[in-house]
Amino acid sequence: MLVGLSSLLCVAVAFTGLTAAQGPDFEAATGPVANQVVHGIPAVNPVKEPWIWPLPQNWKRGPKTLKVGKSIKFKGSGARLPIVSKAIKRYQSLIFKKEDWPMIPYNWTTTDSKARNTLTTVSIEVASKNDRLDMDTDESYSLDISEDGKTSLKSKTVYGALRGLETFSQLVQYNPEHRAFYVPNAPWKISDYPKYKHRGILLDTSRHYYTIAEIEKIIESMSWNKLNVFHWHMLDSTSFPYVSKKYPQLAAKGAYSPGHVYTAKDIKHLVQFGKERGVRLMPEMEAPGHSTAWGYGIPEIASCLNTQPYMGYTIQPPAGQLNIAHPKTKEVVHGLIDEWAELFPDSFFHAAGDEVIMPCWANDTYIQKYLKDNDMTLMELFHKFAIEMEDHVRSKGKTVMVWQEMLLEYHVDLPKDTVVQVWIGASGVKEVTEKGYRTVVSAQDHWYLDLGFGRPRSNPWAEVQGAGFNHWNRVYSYDMRTNLTKAEADLIIGAEATMWGELADANNIEDRLWPRAAAFAERLWSGYENPKGEALTSAAAIMRLLPWRERMVLRGIRAGPLGQGFCTRNPLDCFQPPYKPPTPK
Amino acid sequence: MLVGLSSLLCVAVAFTGLTAAQGPDFEAATGPVANQVVHGIPAVNPVKEPWIWPLPQNWKRGPKTLKVGKSIKFKGSGARLPIVSKAIKRYQSLIFKKEDWPMIPYNWTTTDSKARNTLTTVSIEVASKNDRLDMDTDESYSLDISEDGKTSLKSKTVYGALRGLETFSQLVQYNPEHRAFYVPNAPWKISDYPKYKHRGILLDTSRHYYTIAEIEKIIESMSWNKLNVFHWHMLDSTSFPYVSKKYPQLAAKGAYSPGHVYTAKDIKHLVQFGKERGVRLMPEMEAPGHSTAWGYGIPEIASCLNTQPYMGYTIQPPAGQLNIAHPKTKEVVHGLIDEWAELFPDSFFHAAGDEVIMPCWANDTYIQKYLKDNDMTLMELFHKFAIEMEDHVRSKGKTVMVWQEMLLEYHVDLPKDTVVQVWIGASGVKEVTEKGYRTVVSAQDHWYLDLGFGRPRSNPWAEVQGAGFNHWNRVYSYDMRTNLTKAEADLIIGAEATMWGELADANNIEDRLWPRAAAFAERLWSGYENPKGEALTSAAAIMRLLPWRERMVLRGIRAGPLGQGFCTRNPLDCFQPPYKPPTPK
Repeated sequence: MLVGLSSLLCVAVAFTGLTAAQGPDFEAATGPVANQVVHGIPAVNPVKEPWIWPLPQNWKRGPKTLKVGKSIKFKGSGARLPIVSKAIKRYQSLIFKKEDWPMIPYNWTTTDSKARNTLTTVSIEVASKNDRLDMDTDESYSLDISEDGKTSLKSKTVYGALRGLETFSQLVQYNPEHRAFYVPNAPWKISDYPKYKHRGILLDTSRHYYTIAEIEKIIESMSWNKLNVFHWHMLDSTSFPYVSKKYPQLAAKGAYSPGHVYTAKDIKHLVQFGKERGVRLMPEMEAPGHSTAWGYGIPEIASCLNTQPYMGYTIQPPAGQLNIAHPKTKEVVHGLIDEWAELFPDSFFHAAGDEVIMPCWANDTYIQKYLKDNDMTLMELFHKFAIEMEDHVRSKGKTVMVWQEMLLEYHVDLPKDTVVQVWIGASGVKEVTEKGYRTVVSAQDHWYLDLGFGRPRSNPWAEVQGAGFNHWNRVYSYDMRTNLTKAEADLIIGAEATMWGELADANNIEDRLWPRAAAFAERLWSGYENPKGEALTSAAAIMRLLPWRERMVLRGIRAGPLGQGFCTRNPLDCFQPPYKPPTPK
Repeated sequence: MLVGLSSLLCVAVAFTGLTAAQGPDFEAATGPVANQVVHGIPAVNPVKEPWIWPLPQNWKRGPKTLKVGKSIKFKGSGARLPIVSKAIKRYQSLIFKKEDWPMIPYNWTTTDSKARNTLTTVSIEVASKNDRLDMDTDESYSLDISEDGKTSLKSKTVYGALRGLETFSQLVQYNPEHRAFYVPNAPWKISDYPKYKHRGILLDTSRHYYTIAEIEKIIESMSWNKLNVFHWHMLDSTSFPYVSKKYPQLAAKGAYSPGHVYTAKDIKHLVQFGKERGVRLMPEMEAPGHSTAWGYGIPEIASCLNTQPYMGYTIQPPAGQLNIAHPKTKEVVHGLIDEWAELFPDSFFHAAGDEVIMPCWANDTYIQKYLKDNDMTLMELFHKFAIEMEDHVRSKGKTVMVWQEMLLEYHVDLPKDTVVQVWIGASGVKEVTEKGYRTVVSAQDHWYLDLGFGRPRSNPWAEVQGAGFNHWNRVYSYDMRTNLTKAEADLIIGAEATMWGELADANNIEDRLWPRAAAFAERLWSGYENPKGEALTSAAAIMRLLPWRERMVLRGIRAGPLGQGFCTRNPLDCFQPPYKPPTPK
């Protein structure tokens, strides 16, 4: 059934010395591939770029094939650093995953079928022992593989080493025909770094609960995609899973059950788990909106708690948000900030401030009286609450992040060091940056990965599609810099793809996230152009995303397919010129 | 954290002697439920209908609670029949699944908190030993549970007994508070039967391959939903996984790999696996369109094989369909029909006939010459091929099923015993039945479960949403009988939800299928009205679908959530009047 190596070669020799500069073009390769793939393992898969996801900034490959030893030794001072040595253990298993009948064939772009040399050792050097992880942590690395197999990974920090290890793991490929592992296209010269500093995924653990193991798996798969921020939207109206030391009744009454909670121990564990993978955990304290569940444990801090029918009092059931006039509310919110500021070492802290429903407060007699007694407007009271909350976060030495409404809709007077997260639509990026604020982009029309499955509203009658599904290429094609000046674009510190919980939980989240979050991840790491200024196109990306999805599946992630299996196996027969990507609407 | 039983009771007594006729209405229950759920296990979940999915035709429940013994004995002559005794083994494990912190609370609709009696034995009587499974197989059953625990399941066939066992398994509920199993609301009187005979799911195993174990799991979960037809779309243009005895080269060259195949042994195994669960396996021989992969093994039977660029020659890559003029083609197709007619004992055989691309044939020199020599039009040749193929299927004593184009677009003169499968849209149901043909409905605008994830086309540039996602309620709300006369509606023998393979494979199919295929399944089994003529509404259905989805997850199916967890836990707070379902557009 399989083509003998000899016949593979006669095609392979057509392609020599592939580098970023020169390489076979699609048309040239279409013929032989189209004729061969259906008979088994294709002789060639002449993609212009190496099968590395996200694509490194600078790379150069050659024509030689290296055999990879049964196990690889990782040496050098860097390999002995705790975070790196733990990562090495993980990659020793990730590198050597076999698949007897892969849909993605062995990547035979090399011209040298005979592996004369063997890669046995990777030497790792890390310049600094400082393993502090934060937004400004240097993640750059360089990876060199000589044609005789000498491999050297160098980085400034342990986190750069983690990124380099991931890249290295993707260079190793299993050839089911030889039942052996190879690194094709040596020698390799890679020097790499991220285009954006903040590369995140938001997970909503209130609408649906995720176990610690489930969150670990998400963080782990994020690290493979070189994502570095886990935005933990832990709390919302639907449940209060955080077990507070000072206010245990919040989870006792507000969690879905005593089994659906996160303790301080859980959080510390996940912070460390993330750190060992170069993923920061940024907490979001959703307040004063989206906070019904707080009221079950401490009723006096809630307004319009469980008002029925809920329409008009909330975006979705149940109705209820924090009573921003009650002194107890400020005490509880600030108390929880104290706890989280300690549990989450990250310098970023999300203070939310989205989607507050004024009628809920306007109809609250306590608030009405407070406004009257203090001769205040509701908006003034809201501003006071929000500013005090954010100042309290700042008092912990944290950078405050908020949702866009705080600036664009509620016009809260935000200090210029506030980071504003855009979500309502791409247009918000311009509005925020032209005001001079740094931004994290989560435009729902491109980077909300939970949409497209009917109205997120909870009533069962939804006939409408709800917001549209963001197809992988819609995710990939969105340029955050659209309509921005250079100065405005420089205020984009990064972006987050969001996974809200109305219609996602542990049963389907892996398919919801992947491979679309990988398409997102490449934009954040690799950017929109390579250092030569050449655009990274989805036409080229699909050739790398297909094998990357297969590799993620092999690693145990239930990522959905990008298209029919035929196109995974024969990309050149499916994805060719002259089809040009239309500009996203 | 949990509410004591005493406090549960004070609410529970509000509801007495629930039956289909009388029961608590939503409004009455909203108060106490809304106040209680957030504190732990709700005291009541007063749904109008029992937590059985799909809903039985006739049911009556009472106020008593039965304890269920650690294991249940199944007695009676019926329990000893091979198919039933095997099912009993499965249900002994399905019935006793525990969940410590369920999102769906124990269904405390009974007024009697104290379980005075214990259910220890189920006696099963099956009238006929004949275990032939086909469209006209009787699946009716009656299930009686007395208030002292005596349980009797009666059916005409073993398949009725299977349906009854499933219903029984759903009556048993685990109470995590007592750590015990109960049957609430005894005495029970259930007599049940399906409204439609053909209740299927189509699986495409060509665009993506599914292992035998993966197909087993789909068939198993189908049986829980009382679905009874597995429409096996085994072949398509993308791969040819069937290992033919007579033409082994078809799979050898046309399968994705030697590991991506189905042998005669595999098929026999799955046919038996399905039979033991009351699920018929109906094969579809996709021809003469969608058949590129045949050409890799036997090139002379293909037209426009791998024509590049493919646009215009195929709906999606790769280009190629059967050469309907070549004598070898008829020989191969009829030869495979001979093999499948034996391997698949079912009396239904799907002869496809959809989406042929005329330009592919019009540009084939062999076909052009044949038409000239025989003074024939292309459409005449196509009709000849199709009619000969279908007649050959009939010669095996099978009922022929075809896709709607054969009748409505290609106007093939189909014998009246042909069953026409509608897929292009709901309007096709009228067009087919007014011509007097029996139909199986798979209207893509409601019952295609693979859509909504971008264009199913393989190119990477898709920005459009593609066809819309069919939300569970859109699936549930579609009435096949719309605009039909009684006589036309009587020609609907059933329906199939389809799972085409462009964007689904084993990694995401469980979320793609469930719970939407369950909503579909209830329409097919329970119909649109109960025997009293009262409409089955989605407002009532969601109250039962929520716990059913949770039960399926507990049974190991990765079904997606129907809404935020709060609504699973507190359905009455989310799904209330006055929201009325809009009529589907």
